[in-house]
Amino acid sequence: MPEAVNLEAKLSLFHEPWSPKIVTTYNDNDIMVVKFEGEFPMHKHPDTDDFFLVLDGHVTIETEEGDVELRPGELYVVPKGVMHRPIAHGEAKVLLIEPKGLPNSGDPATAATKVRI
Amino acid sequence: MPEAVNLEAKLSLFHEPWSPKIVTTYNDNDIMVVKFEGEFPMHKHPDTDDFFLVLDGHVTIETEEGDVELRPGELYVVPKGVMHRPIAHGEAKVLLIEPKGLPNSGDPATAATKVRI
Repeated sequence: MPEAVNLEAKLSLFHEPWSPKIVTTYNDNDIMVVKFEGEFPMHKHPDTDDFFLVLDGHVTIETEEGDVELRPGELYVVPKGVMHRPIAHGEAKVLLIEPKGLPNSGDPATAATKVRI
Repeated sequence: MPEAVNLEAKLSLFHEPWSPKIVTTYNDNDIMVVKFEGEFPMHKHPDTDDFFLVLDGHVTIETEEGDVELRPGELYVVPKGVMHRPIAHGEAKVLLIEPKGLPNSGDPATAATKVRI
């Protein structure tokens, strides 16, 4: 039977920040929930855009093209190849979409392992 | 300057149901907001999954594999090739992701024109 994904329920299953959890897939992309806290390193994805929808909290996405402020119900897609860094003011909850297997840090050596929950 | 997309603000710009509006793009996909009201015809997309995230209201997605109930903060991805029909109980507001140029009805002859707002 097909089943809805309740984002808040999925987010309640873990605590560690910057550790995206796959909740479903869309074509060749992972649909993920993630908690942000503090600053992530500046990075880029040379081959893909990067989708952020803030569900809770306040996130600034610093980019080489300027900064974007995101509050609940607001989204931003970082264009491919653009240097960026998300910063959470307190804890933030985010829906993230990236191609399957993409290292979240832009570099496999420092990337979080994305598991399905 | 990069700019956040505020989903509620975009949804306030139009009223007609079943007329998806493009708010940004992610790789080869349109990120859209749409209002649902009543029933949409049963259809399928042979070549792509179909992403629905309910922002407001109550949506049932009837599929040939079973029905899915979606309330705010809940999402479901209809697998490609699966017959489905969204039904809104009252008005519902939805974030929709589909490949660029995809006919929302599964058939170009009956599809809504997707414009960017």
